[in-house]
Amino acid sequence: MKKSINPFNQITYDIPEILDDSDGIKDFLSNNSGKKVIVVQGLGFVGAVMSLVCANSEKEEYAVIGIDLPNENSFWKIKSINEGLFPLIAEDPKIDEFFNNSKKKNNFYATYDPLCFKYADVIIVDINLDVQKDSLENYELNNFEVDLSSFKKAITTVGEHVNENALMLVETTVPPGTCEQIIKPIMQEELEKRNLSFQDFGIGHSYERVMPGPEYVDSIKSFPRVYSGINEESANRTEVFLRTIIDTSKCDLTRLEHTNATEMAKVLENSYRATNIAFAVEWSRFAEEAGVDMYEIVNAIRVRNTHSNLMYPGIGVGGYCLTKDPLLASWSRKNLFGAQSGLDMSVESVSINDRMPRYAHERLKNVFGDLKDKNILLLGVSYRGDVGDTRYTPVEPLYKLLKDGDSIIELHDPYITFWEEQNCKVETDFDSVIDNDFDMIIISTGHSFYAKKDTFSKILNLKSLQIYDTIGLFSKEQIEQLTKKHDFSVLGRGDI
Amino acid sequence: MKKSINPFNQITYDIPEILDDSDGIKDFLSNNSGKKVIVVQGLGFVGAVMSLVCANSEKEEYAVIGIDLPNENSFWKIKSINEGLFPLIAEDPKIDEFFNNSKKKNNFYATYDPLCFKYADVIIVDINLDVQKDSLENYELNNFEVDLSSFKKAITTVGEHVNENALMLVETTVPPGTCEQIIKPIMQEELEKRNLSFQDFGIGHSYERVMPGPEYVDSIKSFPRVYSGINEESANRTEVFLRTIIDTSKCDLTRLEHTNATEMAKVLENSYRATNIAFAVEWSRFAEEAGVDMYEIVNAIRVRNTHSNLMYPGIGVGGYCLTKDPLLASWSRKNLFGAQSGLDMSVESVSINDRMPRYAHERLKNVFGDLKDKNILLLGVSYRGDVGDTRYTPVEPLYKLLKDGDSIIELHDPYITFWEEQNCKVETDFDSVIDNDFDMIIISTGHSFYAKKDTFSKILNLKSLQIYDTIGLFSKEQIEQLTKKHDFSVLGRGDI
Repeated sequence: MKKSINPFNQITYDIPEILDDSDGIKDFLSNNSGKKVIVVQGLGFVGAVMSLVCANSEKEEYAVIGIDLPNENSFWKIKSINEGLFPLIAEDPKIDEFFNNSKKKNNFYATYDPLCFKYADVIIVDINLDVQKDSLENYELNNFEVDLSSFKKAITTVGEHVNENALMLVETTVPPGTCEQIIKPIMQEELEKRNLSFQDFGIGHSYERVMPGPEYVDSIKSFPRVYSGINEESANRTEVFLRTIIDTSKCDLTRLEHTNATEMAKVLENSYRATNIAFAVEWSRFAEEAGVDMYEIVNAIRVRNTHSNLMYPGIGVGGYCLTKDPLLASWSRKNLFGAQSGLDMSVESVSINDRMPRYAHERLKNVFGDLKDKNILLLGVSYRGDVGDTRYTPVEPLYKLLKDGDSIIELHDPYITFWEEQNCKVETDFDSVIDNDFDMIIISTGHSFYAKKDTFSKILNLKSLQIYDTIGLFSKEQIEQLTKKHDFSVLGRGDI
Repeated sequence: MKKSINPFNQITYDIPEILDDSDGIKDFLSNNSGKKVIVVQGLGFVGAVMSLVCANSEKEEYAVIGIDLPNENSFWKIKSINEGLFPLIAEDPKIDEFFNNSKKKNNFYATYDPLCFKYADVIIVDINLDVQKDSLENYELNNFEVDLSSFKKAITTVGEHVNENALMLVETTVPPGTCEQIIKPIMQEELEKRNLSFQDFGIGHSYERVMPGPEYVDSIKSFPRVYSGINEESANRTEVFLRTIIDTSKCDLTRLEHTNATEMAKVLENSYRATNIAFAVEWSRFAEEAGVDMYEIVNAIRVRNTHSNLMYPGIGVGGYCLTKDPLLASWSRKNLFGAQSGLDMSVESVSINDRMPRYAHERLKNVFGDLKDKNILLLGVSYRGDVGDTRYTPVEPLYKLLKDGDSIIELHDPYITFWEEQNCKVETDFDSVIDNDFDMIIISTGHSFYAKKDTFSKILNLKSLQIYDTIGLFSKEQIEQLTKKHDFSVLGRGDI
């Protein structure tokens, strides 16, 4: 029997061989009679929290079922939710509040059984659509592939069960053209196979702008949204639904003319950010060569409104979006719209960004010499400051390169207890890890915790060691103090 | 005898063969005794207005001399200033006000005689430093060269006359490294040639962020500034001077550690903008292919603070800065700092942007067919909306391509009477140019004038013709009206 383990508490679940949760679903629905049914497909970083937002809508009109696959990675999430344990650890207190509410009201249930789609008034698609990149292994992007097969399979599963009047709201970041060219034909075919009409089936697209962190819930509930539908009726229904869960007193809903447009808007948004980071990367190298401080320059330029989003240098780009969305878009341009060329500049930006950790490692060796057998403390494994999220974190390639170079590494992160991708524990207690046994400390994630007075003075007061700041975390005053005692260097600063 | 012609009023001046203005300079200075002397080198878009700002400083402590070369292009500016006619036509009423003030107070004089440097307490360097690009001829950037010889010559001229205690403030956009590696050695050598000490000579760098347009003067006087010096004393003196002419109650002065840093900040700023435009270009092509409206998408994304500077599609990039600054920087990285590579992404952005007018022309032909013998009215020759400035305007390549294709072209621009680069007159009176003789109207510059109610209805009421909007000037409602009557297309919109 296959097993699925909750990485946060190590509780192990047996995955049943007979996959039938019809009783569980029917029980849940009979307790929620009269409510509209929302099925959220995918219980990851978006779907899990989207489910909570729906279950906590202002008018409490929804019974929410979250569905995921009964496999090693996801089965424990289904069980945890039903046992009263939310499958994400988040800094946002609203997550606990919303989850406890939904448990009290008994209006949120999780399952693996696609039977649930049959009862859905609204299906929200929050499954992953990944890109296969070789840079995860080579620290350099030479090739990538977009494989839609599991995405198509998931959509087909919905089509096999759903009723002909339901509304499907796609939130997954997809290659532009997907709703029109891929989802629509699948749903049409599946409904017709069952002698149902496609005419009144709705397909809408509205992308989330979820940001895991202290405002996780509000990044769904109170953040402006763009939406569209495959026809006017679908767009109208999408709008009506979104208004029941989004706080439109705090944020705008903007309708675009076509699903191609909203799909493009999402990947364009993230490609813009990836490109702006790649821009900063190239100039950081120049700043180092010219012996100047890139952070100082960026701060001086950011005073202009038109330049306020200029990026700082850093160790690299992580997270689920910026690392792949430009590639999805470029793939779409060639493969769904038949263009001769992709989006070369955006793809090149991903490529530049993917090389950042390797560069950070090279500079580290250039500044501090050989790292073999050195005891190194990595402060932070998250891909982003003040957030507990290790997906595609740039700390991972740095960590692997250091290990390959026979350094001895300890890991700390205030928000991460277990690093899934590397399958290892991470210390969250700073006091238990900070001591004089290290040769080097690397600030690998910009958690503000490390610059706080208490934490900083513990670092400062260690016996003289090497400190490498990869993200410019410390203030000018802190740098002055550190430089007096330690051998200190910042990535993106030339004159040290 | 060589001549120099004022293009605005066609007044012709003989350039004297004996170049001696010592009497003029001495007269001016004797009328301004007790005042500190500022010499502004270069009377172009920056230097001319910088002179006015200095002459109108709060405490009126300066006598300002503007110097330019006694050649065809510049001699008329010198004469015009001294005759009471400012050499730029600008929408900013402060220009006239400041110029009239300086004439009344008799504290602004123009000359060609480098003798004036001898009397200078402060020299402000506002000369051009150009890049030679082949894209101006080929509509595509394959090669570019940076030739510093005339810049060095101008600096040498200062060094031949200046006194050893003066402060030189460089405002010209230069390749990073120029103050340290080029200007400093020249000044040192020239002073030592005259047995003077370099020790107390000051060199500061502070770049302008001048924006010709309705707030021309305030873009110097009330805009945040970054500055530095070749040593601390130079930086201090630069700060003291800037505080006398900049309104620091309205904007910050930020000191950076090194002239390399301020020089880099300037070209980085402009490269960022050039890169953001190139990003929008690539995606605009994709939007056209996917049949969606890039303007609508950009508007939907711009609601996010982090994305508020996302650019619209358009006909191309013009002006003096964005078209060359990334190239200066890349050149510097290789030639002044010995790096293996330049700034490839920034150079590629210039290359993408330089191809925009040719693409606009190709799409025009694809949408509307052959343009041979068509009567076309180009609305706007400026490089930017609501500004009268034709330097490197993207309308120029479009205009040349249309002429090469045997179209018959008329030009209108509310702010331009004479197009220097094409040596031709431009009509400013809209009523005298708008009539039914045209086959096509091209909105080539985003002057808001063309979208105003009156102007718009005159365009709308023409007999049915072809209208091509290259910059998305018209509102959704206006487009609906235009589309009903005319054959209308917008660059960056797919579904028309």
